[in-house]
Amino acid sequence: MDDSTAQGPAGATPVIASRAVYFVSDSTGITAETLGNALLANFPAARFTPHTIPFVDSVARVDGVLDRLRQTPDAGSPPLVFTTVKHAALRARLAAAPAVVIDLLGGHLHELEVALGQSASEQPGRYHAVGDLDAYHARMRAVEYAVEHDDGQSTRALDAADVIIVAPSRCGKTPTTMYLALQYGLLVANYPLTDDDFPTEGLPRPIAPYAARCFGLTTTPLRLSQVRTERRPHSRYASLEQCTLEVRRAEELYRRCRVPSLNSSAKSVEEMSAVIMQALKLRA
Amino acid sequence: MDDSTAQGPAGATPVIASRAVYFVSDSTGITAETLGNALLANFPAARFTPHTIPFVDSVARVDGVLDRLRQTPDAGSPPLVFTTVKHAALRARLAAAPAVVIDLLGGHLHELEVALGQSASEQPGRYHAVGDLDAYHARMRAVEYAVEHDDGQSTRALDAADVIIVAPSRCGKTPTTMYLALQYGLLVANYPLTDDDFPTEGLPRPIAPYAARCFGLTTTPLRLSQVRTERRPHSRYASLEQCTLEVRRAEELYRRCRVPSLNSSAKSVEEMSAVIMQALKLRA
Repeated sequence: MDDSTAQGPAGATPVIASRAVYFVSDSTGITAETLGNALLANFPAARFTPHTIPFVDSVARVDGVLDRLRQTPDAGSPPLVFTTVKHAALRARLAAAPAVVIDLLGGHLHELEVALGQSASEQPGRYHAVGDLDAYHARMRAVEYAVEHDDGQSTRALDAADVIIVAPSRCGKTPTTMYLALQYGLLVANYPLTDDDFPTEGLPRPIAPYAARCFGLTTTPLRLSQVRTERRPHSRYASLEQCTLEVRRAEELYRRCRVPSLNSSAKSVEEMSAVIMQALKLRA
Repeated sequence: MDDSTAQGPAGATPVIASRAVYFVSDSTGITAETLGNALLANFPAARFTPHTIPFVDSVARVDGVLDRLRQTPDAGSPPLVFTTVKHAALRARLAAAPAVVIDLLGGHLHELEVALGQSASEQPGRYHAVGDLDAYHARMRAVEYAVEHDDGQSTRALDAADVIIVAPSRCGKTPTTMYLALQYGLLVANYPLTDDDFPTEGLPRPIAPYAARCFGLTTTPLRLSQVRTERRPHSRYASLEQCTLEVRRAEELYRRCRVPSLNSSAKSVEEMSAVIMQALKLRA
């Protein structure tokens, strides 16, 4: 058997064996998962089975990881370990694992120590801890603001919004709103465009004073019809005709009111968020 | 003047100059921000002014970054650049910047190429793109589920929940719920414990059938009183007496019903999420 593939019956597509991957962290595991997955995404032909082991902050816990690695079935290819464990002694212990160990922080920390002329702290990773209390609470308040202002439910504090996401129903407003709030602590409201909003020339009255902070989403009529059908099958709301009309009217509105906009049909919330922040100059 | 500090008046605390930091990505910038910030958090004595430049995926855009770097005021210490740009020619062009350039992917990609016996793709980073459509849509549905089931609003599909976060009002249920949904695509409901829930012995009726999926949050009475005071000053709801009672009752309930729990007062949503997933064995 090959390292990475198991050959199926003659002539059949080879079955690709899945390689065990461990994200090992002295903290939440989020940084290790994020960078590890970003790296693995560059090998689309390979198959991986990921595991995350957070809070590995002592010799006993490193030894627990080593035990688990020794028990991982190995068809000739040792597991991959992406680690952000920072303490030198723990790192050294982990490096002896029966695995390919990729140290995501170590080398870069050394580069930074040289650049900054300072030694790095040896405390476990604190980046995903509360840290700056004011900044953290602002982020948590942003999530509450987003929930309160979801789907035009409240227009109470729209003047405080950093962004108002405008779109017909089911174009991806809510997940994008939550992502911007959670990840960046931005105050994000969203406002659904309905048939009632179209007889007028300008933006709907509740959001008209804030045009400079509006960002529009569109999608393709077919995609919109599919998504709406999941929610209300065989409805006028989900019909391709209605979806085509709503998308066209929304796009006209954005153009007329100079609201920057984006087609959400092939974009992730992360990509939309990056585009929105760039368009509204919300990132330093 | 020193590289990193500007001396204040004699005897005063030295003013620490803030070092410009750029996160430069060929995609959303999220991976570069996450790892870059995780690295910088190890130098708590230093001050940084971060900037993110996403979608740097062409020679023209790299040249735009180089221009911006040349215009960055430099008090003897060049800016730091954390990059996840993947294309070799673009990386090489960026490496010539008047800055300390830290390549977050390059070296690790090479380690992975060796370990996997495959070449890495040279496409711009796709990790934060839609990728696996089914997985992506499941994540988006999880956000909708979280919004729909926030604060006990709906008990419609509680049987589908992966996690039910239980806690008195203002202990951090909502942000933790949104984080688990957005980051991990878990179906997370949350249920507020009120005075009405305490005359009974067991868990409140709507969530009682799902005890094995419940996770409780507590906090300190003082912290709870502070947070509630922001919302309703001088109310019985925010009084230290009421908060002490509710926290004590909640903790007793968790113990009695064997619901794992966590004090949220000094934990971030990321840390709470990691603990919850570990306790309920939701991470592979």
